[in-house]
Amino acid sequence: MTVEALADLSRRLPDLRLLTEAGDLEHYGRDWTRRWTPAPMAIALPASIEEVQGIVRWANERKVAIVPSGGRTGLSGGAVAAQGELVLSLSRMNRVLGFDVVDRTLAVQPGIALETVHGAAREHGLIYPVDFAARGSCSIGGNIATNAGGIRVIRYGNTREWIAGLKVVAGNGELLDLNRGLIKNSSGYDLRQLMIGSEGTLGIVVEATLRLTDPPPASQVMLLALPNMDALMQVFALFRAGLSLQAFEFFTDIALKHVLAHGAQRAIDGEHPYYVVTEFDAPDERAQEAAMTAFEQGVEQGLISDGVIAQSDAQAAALWRLREGITESLASHKPYKNDISVRIGAVSAFLHDIQALLSREYPHIDVVWFGHIGDGNLHINVLKPETLSDADFIAQCEHVTKLLADTLHRHGGSISAEHGIGLVKRAYLESTRSAAEIALMRGVKTVFDPNGILNPGKLFI
Amino acid sequence: MTVEALADLSRRLPDLRLLTEAGDLEHYGRDWTRRWTPAPMAIALPASIEEVQGIVRWANERKVAIVPSGGRTGLSGGAVAAQGELVLSLSRMNRVLGFDVVDRTLAVQPGIALETVHGAAREHGLIYPVDFAARGSCSIGGNIATNAGGIRVIRYGNTREWIAGLKVVAGNGELLDLNRGLIKNSSGYDLRQLMIGSEGTLGIVVEATLRLTDPPPASQVMLLALPNMDALMQVFALFRAGLSLQAFEFFTDIALKHVLAHGAQRAIDGEHPYYVVTEFDAPDERAQEAAMTAFEQGVEQGLISDGVIAQSDAQAAALWRLREGITESLASHKPYKNDISVRIGAVSAFLHDIQALLSREYPHIDVVWFGHIGDGNLHINVLKPETLSDADFIAQCEHVTKLLADTLHRHGGSISAEHGIGLVKRAYLESTRSAAEIALMRGVKTVFDPNGILNPGKLFI
Repeated sequence: MTVEALADLSRRLPDLRLLTEAGDLEHYGRDWTRRWTPAPMAIALPASIEEVQGIVRWANERKVAIVPSGGRTGLSGGAVAAQGELVLSLSRMNRVLGFDVVDRTLAVQPGIALETVHGAAREHGLIYPVDFAARGSCSIGGNIATNAGGIRVIRYGNTREWIAGLKVVAGNGELLDLNRGLIKNSSGYDLRQLMIGSEGTLGIVVEATLRLTDPPPASQVMLLALPNMDALMQVFALFRAGLSLQAFEFFTDIALKHVLAHGAQRAIDGEHPYYVVTEFDAPDERAQEAAMTAFEQGVEQGLISDGVIAQSDAQAAALWRLREGITESLASHKPYKNDISVRIGAVSAFLHDIQALLSREYPHIDVVWFGHIGDGNLHINVLKPETLSDADFIAQCEHVTKLLADTLHRHGGSISAEHGIGLVKRAYLESTRSAAEIALMRGVKTVFDPNGILNPGKLFI
Repeated sequence: MTVEALADLSRRLPDLRLLTEAGDLEHYGRDWTRRWTPAPMAIALPASIEEVQGIVRWANERKVAIVPSGGRTGLSGGAVAAQGELVLSLSRMNRVLGFDVVDRTLAVQPGIALETVHGAAREHGLIYPVDFAARGSCSIGGNIATNAGGIRVIRYGNTREWIAGLKVVAGNGELLDLNRGLIKNSSGYDLRQLMIGSEGTLGIVVEATLRLTDPPPASQVMLLALPNMDALMQVFALFRAGLSLQAFEFFTDIALKHVLAHGAQRAIDGEHPYYVVTEFDAPDERAQEAAMTAFEQGVEQGLISDGVIAQSDAQAAALWRLREGITESLASHKPYKNDISVRIGAVSAFLHDIQALLSREYPHIDVVWFGHIGDGNLHINVLKPETLSDADFIAQCEHVTKLLADTLHRHGGSISAEHGIGLVKRAYLESTRSAAEIALMRGVKTVFDPNGILNPGKLFI
């Protein structure tokens, strides 16, 4: 059936590039999760919106499942094809389509890398402010599919805020041209917003109009060492009160150990349990003084043990590397990842609860914490001991995630802050969304994708 | 049937306040549009979420249509009850429920006036930045239902950006607690965003968590007189390049004539066809110099004929009154209103096209233009000549709106920038949203409101 179906697809779209070699199936069939064995039926690499529509129409008729695919840097299995699906890779649709100087928007194809978008914005003296460590490999289409967040959310919000227009091929094959770059448009349901964060289950993004903005003023980067967990949100309050924050990130001594072992340079001597990297506007002496005042108050109040302020761009980059290098430094340990959030007003109480939970449940396992604490977003990486099999390790982590989900539910948090639900967190969706919400989501899914061909099994079964 | 149905409602909810007097039916049965004769079956004034749910469940069983109702300041007929509907007024649910200092959020009931929200934010040293002339009477629930915009969108965006959480009673009576104040939450479809701007057709907002922010720095207000239409967007470019704009509004000489006749003070002598009121950050001399530089460049380039900068808060208020007083100054002329938008990059070409259209189609009728031109949003008010009957006047205006909708379609614009579709623009929705989009919207409506009891006939039939 597969061979005949693919032959039919090739007949309909004679110019469509299709890959069926084993190496390609494995390469395109998975994302940064490594839990599933890739098994797509084939890889389609469309070069145009029309080809995407043709594939979706074919899939509807044939009842073939499609996995939309970008940079495959996802951590939730949203781009995994392990069930004989057709992978629809947007990697050939990766161009900048245009810049509008009055609107200050950049029109791009979905397969473009985030870093390429950054560069294109800079060419016009502007910035696209969403940013995170995977910038070189992740695609803007994937960013939209997960409403990607990252390290500048405290200042600029999530991807959602920066999408002025979206062209989407819905599950029924229709091309939707949503919002078209308008700033004000109160003309019925904002389907653009519904698409953002829908993980390829409602439609396939085939073009995006991104809003750009002025670069921020000159900034400073500071690394702070903190004596205990309670100090975290108090230091956050001190710095937010006096400064315009661009980022406020934290990590623990265990995270530091790994990133130093991976080649980063120590910046503060001694042993400290918690660290913060913060970046803030510092266009003038007044702002720099405000930062020093916040720092000194923190020291006086016993909230800050030590600190260093970058004196050059190179030193700023070195401080950032201590935070941004963590994920890469853990990769060889096959970490199990939780990406969770609560309201920032709930962070302190929540941290206490999960610290107790994690030290009880993982007594002999390294657990690395870090994250965007100024957004209430915490990344937990549980490192696999060499003595445990992959399967046993994941089973143990899933057990703890269930307890974590209960804790999140009590604190009104989310089981997925910025990575999406995908396959990895599907079983825990009910800790974050009520049965009534999930029922409505299923209803919406049926409206946009009546035959259930778009990324089936992701988000919910 | 009505009497028996209402008796049943009272039996189920013995404490529910119900009004059935003719005066109340007229008062609550309409909004600021005056085109429809109010004819609700009754007015329900619930005092709690449970009462709202009870009403919605009763309406589902009885197949009674509900019109959710806030401050009824809408200009699109979204809150009109002219078909025997039950008006569900949120006016008794108008309290501040709480403030969180870490999250910097304000939890409010939907019936609270925008101006009361402003005051509550100020009490905590913060602002809720959405603002427009109806602030004293409009309700936050209505703002959410239409994704209200206003005069600060250029700086702060629309209502959509400021909603951290929404409690909503869906059309099936279920209470949804959407997003709960989280900054990052990538856990499936963002139903909160879908609700915003849905004009009461998917659910009834019963509580909102509003994000607050720091007050802007000290600002200055400037009035500019322009010699022609082409200068508008060029002056906008000059001012945006050098300044951090909080507002950039325009109006015409005809608008000025009306607002002066209504008691405002002339601030610039002579006859000028176009005026701009702009407000921008001016915390220091550098910013004030940048404003003077932009002004002088505009004068040198022949784009600005004259200007005045407010020297006091009172003078700033007087300049703002020239813009904000326009709507009120036109009210006695029973204006027919268009509220349209295009991308700001398309404003210049669009203005030329509609100027030609309006002068051809309304040769003997006063047409007043003004609006949020920095957002691409234009308000057109057509004044009814005394010699024309209401019906003939509206018929003529509807004919022109059809042509205007075609022009908007060519320029990729929207038939409703910030007022919503309601009853007034229902016939023109297809100029802004494709048939495929409308079909999807209908599908979504059915998911949330299977019996079609929520604001039927609004947005689409």
